[in-house]
Amino acid sequence: MPRPPLLAFIACSLDGLIARPGGELDWLALAEEPGEDHGYAAFVSRVDTLVMGRGTFETVRDFPEWPYAGLRVIVLSRTLGEADLPARLHGLLELHSGELPNLLPLLDGAKGVYVDGGQVLQSFIRAELLDELTVTRLPILLGQGRPLFGPLEADVRWEHVQTRVFDRTGTVQSTYRRLTTP
Amino acid sequence: MPRPPLLAFIACSLDGLIARPGGELDWLALAEEPGEDHGYAAFVSRVDTLVMGRGTFETVRDFPEWPYAGLRVIVLSRTLGEADLPARLHGLLELHSGELPNLLPLLDGAKGVYVDGGQVLQSFIRAELLDELTVTRLPILLGQGRPLFGPLEADVRWEHVQTRVFDRTGTVQSTYRRLTTP
Repeated sequence: MPRPPLLAFIACSLDGLIARPGGELDWLALAEEPGEDHGYAAFVSRVDTLVMGRGTFETVRDFPEWPYAGLRVIVLSRTLGEADLPARLHGLLELHSGELPNLLPLLDGAKGVYVDGGQVLQSFIRAELLDELTVTRLPILLGQGRPLFGPLEADVRWEHVQTRVFDRTGTVQSTYRRLTTP
Repeated sequence: MPRPPLLAFIACSLDGLIARPGGELDWLALAEEPGEDHGYAAFVSRVDTLVMGRGTFETVRDFPEWPYAGLRVIVLSRTLGEADLPARLHGLLELHSGELPNLLPLLDGAKGVYVDGGQVLQSFIRAELLDELTVTRLPILLGQGRPLFGPLEADVRWEHVQTRVFDRTGTVQSTYRRLTTP
């Protein structure tokens, strides 16, 4: 069985940061427009599984509503245990502490996998596992925070799929498909 | 006399790098298309002065042809002296060792100033002096090299002016104007 497509859909600043140093996401409000989801619903309709890291989990665990209803959620962490999960999240996610190669069999049979969070995304890109990347850039420089991309051993090349501009907020969204070396 | 507009026009990788660790620009070839200058000629027609840093200077000094004929060129460096300039560049550029505030009077009367190079660009952005930024992103992750953007004390916000896609190479170019705080 071929592995499911691994897809990312993530917002960043012009300087490629996905959160302020403490994880704050307040600046994402700059892109908010009533009735505009920036293609998120269409993206989520292509996946049934979400893989995120501890950093992302700690940002979303305290959201008033669990934002991933309907998705199988796998949280990658070497340090979190069931005891670290608020009672209301029991049964809503799986903790996985292994390395990426051990994760892949768990994804067998998935329709599509949403890979979220800086560190996890970076590890999937490094392993040349990320198939598609949608980056939504807000017109702001934060100057410090958590980077979307990280070190690589070798270039990773992409094919541009489409770019959309959200004129009212100046947000620019580009989708890329990874070019596989023949 | 109002100061001239300070403008940047720069290419980077998807991960926001402008050169490999040793300054190599080989990957820019990915964006090359016969007859397509990505708006460079139109951009250069708006400026008569170029400010660059030592890093950029050391990359361009050995180009077979001096690429900035017709522009007044100011190289910012605390370490370079006239003795470091190849004879063929004498008279083609000015060395300036001072801080940015001391540079500004030298720009009085310029039509427009092209600010080039990572470190210099970062210092102009930090000083809230850069008025317009055109970033041309190539569809490649380099994973290591010299970053376009750097640390800031505070957010810098921009207004999106336009985005162009160069379909054949998947290059995406966005222009932003700095929002001045009222």
